[in-house]
Amino acid sequence: MENKIITLANRPNGIVESSNFKLEERNIPELEDGQLLIKVEYISLDPAMRGWMNEGTTYIKGVAIGAVMRGFAAGKVVQSKNEDFQKGDYVTGMLGVQTHAISDGKDLSKVDIRAGRLSLHIGVLGMPGMTAYFGLLEKGQPKAGETIFISGAAGIVGSTVGQIAKIRGCKVIGTAGSEKKCEYLIKECNLDAAINYKTQDIADELKKHAPNGVDIFYDNVGGEILDIALANLARGARVVICGAISQYNKPKIQGPSNYMKVVTARGVMNGIIVFDYIDQYPRAVKDIATWLEKGKMQSKEHIKEGIENFPSTLRMLFTGDNFGKLLLKV
Amino acid sequence: MENKIITLANRPNGIVESSNFKLEERNIPELEDGQLLIKVEYISLDPAMRGWMNEGTTYIKGVAIGAVMRGFAAGKVVQSKNEDFQKGDYVTGMLGVQTHAISDGKDLSKVDIRAGRLSLHIGVLGMPGMTAYFGLLEKGQPKAGETIFISGAAGIVGSTVGQIAKIRGCKVIGTAGSEKKCEYLIKECNLDAAINYKTQDIADELKKHAPNGVDIFYDNVGGEILDIALANLARGARVVICGAISQYNKPKIQGPSNYMKVVTARGVMNGIIVFDYIDQYPRAVKDIATWLEKGKMQSKEHIKEGIENFPSTLRMLFTGDNFGKLLLKV
Repeated sequence: MENKIITLANRPNGIVESSNFKLEERNIPELEDGQLLIKVEYISLDPAMRGWMNEGTTYIKGVAIGAVMRGFAAGKVVQSKNEDFQKGDYVTGMLGVQTHAISDGKDLSKVDIRAGRLSLHIGVLGMPGMTAYFGLLEKGQPKAGETIFISGAAGIVGSTVGQIAKIRGCKVIGTAGSEKKCEYLIKECNLDAAINYKTQDIADELKKHAPNGVDIFYDNVGGEILDIALANLARGARVVICGAISQYNKPKIQGPSNYMKVVTARGVMNGIIVFDYIDQYPRAVKDIATWLEKGKMQSKEHIKEGIENFPSTLRMLFTGDNFGKLLLKV
Repeated sequence: MENKIITLANRPNGIVESSNFKLEERNIPELEDGQLLIKVEYISLDPAMRGWMNEGTTYIKGVAIGAVMRGFAAGKVVQSKNEDFQKGDYVTGMLGVQTHAISDGKDLSKVDIRAGRLSLHIGVLGMPGMTAYFGLLEKGQPKAGETIFISGAAGIVGSTVGQIAKIRGCKVIGTAGSEKKCEYLIKECNLDAAINYKTQDIADELKKHAPNGVDIFYDNVGGEILDIALANLARGARVVICGAISQYNKPKIQGPSNYMKVVTARGVMNGIIVFDYIDQYPRAVKDIATWLEKGKMQSKEHIKEGIENFPSTLRMLFTGDNFGKLLLKV
């Protein structure tokens, strides 16, 4: 049996190129005691992948040249010499961008597909969902009646944040990059306002929809939109930094000129590292599964097929061509 | 009797120029009921003055062209038709850059010169001292044994922060712009390390003196030094934004590229607006006066004389030519 893998051929200089990756085939070795073999079914495409392609920092270790591209994925156990896992179990973890993964079982999570179909466990029931849930509820501390502004609101994290904020009784304004996405935010995610950052003046629209300022800004985008949000903070605002998708392909991140507005608003800027809440994931999965089941929350998936299409699919994340949680079906 | 006043002649474009101001003489009118006349003795030179010279924002109203330059000052009541103030009382307040001020008594503070000589009440016992005290203790939340890094450490706010942090048992590292100032920080303010930002590599020195990172960064400077500090935060760090003296003369503030380091450090960035603590000033004045009296704290003053020297004295703040709290003796 052959394992098809995507390796990192070289590091990108700016935007990700297909030539940064190489498709290879490798034999799958016999399992050793304690190991298990997983057939990968869905691979998550995440902005963090861009960072992993770099040399690395003290905080994030880069993928080595020639190594399997790092990736969060979901799959099914097809062989097991590990007593904690049975053939037929469904799992998620850092399985890598490949069709088959061998694991020692550490850092794998078993998933209960009764809570939702497998693909949802790398989306709204997985890391992006957890990032939204804990970032909003723990760092944002939303109170009913407050106004929240979300950048990248049609992405998996943004749309989950927006829907949870609505459930919590907030007024929610989000940005997205197309009319279709804005319509989705209003009609399916129940947001109060959606700003098309490609065609509308974000600052004007934000002032119109949040005349008293923004109590929570949940930022997935960074750059100009962060500065606009900072200029419109309400007193006591919480700025929750989750990502900076607009900046990841740049050699140097553009810092927010308006950072002192956090001070004058008597606000606070911090952010979400989802791994800090790992012990509390079950509670979040249960809440989100319940909301999905009751129809209080939607989760849109954008599924591409074929491991060989990984490079072009990853690029879609940065061009904004995805609509919903971007997944690769293996 | 004549009042000598400094008015704002025009708005600066970048750095403050003497030609932005005009020295004028005006008659002092008769007092109306409820008013009092103050002979101004010391005028405080503050970085905020640069902001007041601009057109203004929703948060800070600019000084009008032709109006008396705004300024915090201390003086003595020489005539009073206000029952709350007696001739001979000492007061501080926004008296403006002039030799005599007429006030209705609102927003004036009576000062007790037994706690310290008059000039200290616009320094370490006044707004800068309060800014240091509450910024450090309320926002920074220092704990004994923690490492604190202070930019602009030889300034009135910075040196007060540093000395309070030492009293609280912290390891304190500060930056300053001359050997003399660095020596002052070590020998008189009792700091553990001083970095000369004009001759030393700040990042290298900071790593050397704070190998485990910085638990509190108290920022008076902004710009490059803020980015260096953010790259060296310890887990759970507090970033207290107080000022950005390096940026005030620039058309656009340079935002911190490393702002996401606050997130990875599980830190928090906020800042100090001293007016929020006005009800608690007496407690801070008492603490600082006690420390001064017991010799646990020093306060260095840099006093220039003559109202006509206001423009050149103000420029010293931005060139770093002052050494200690900069005051104009009227």
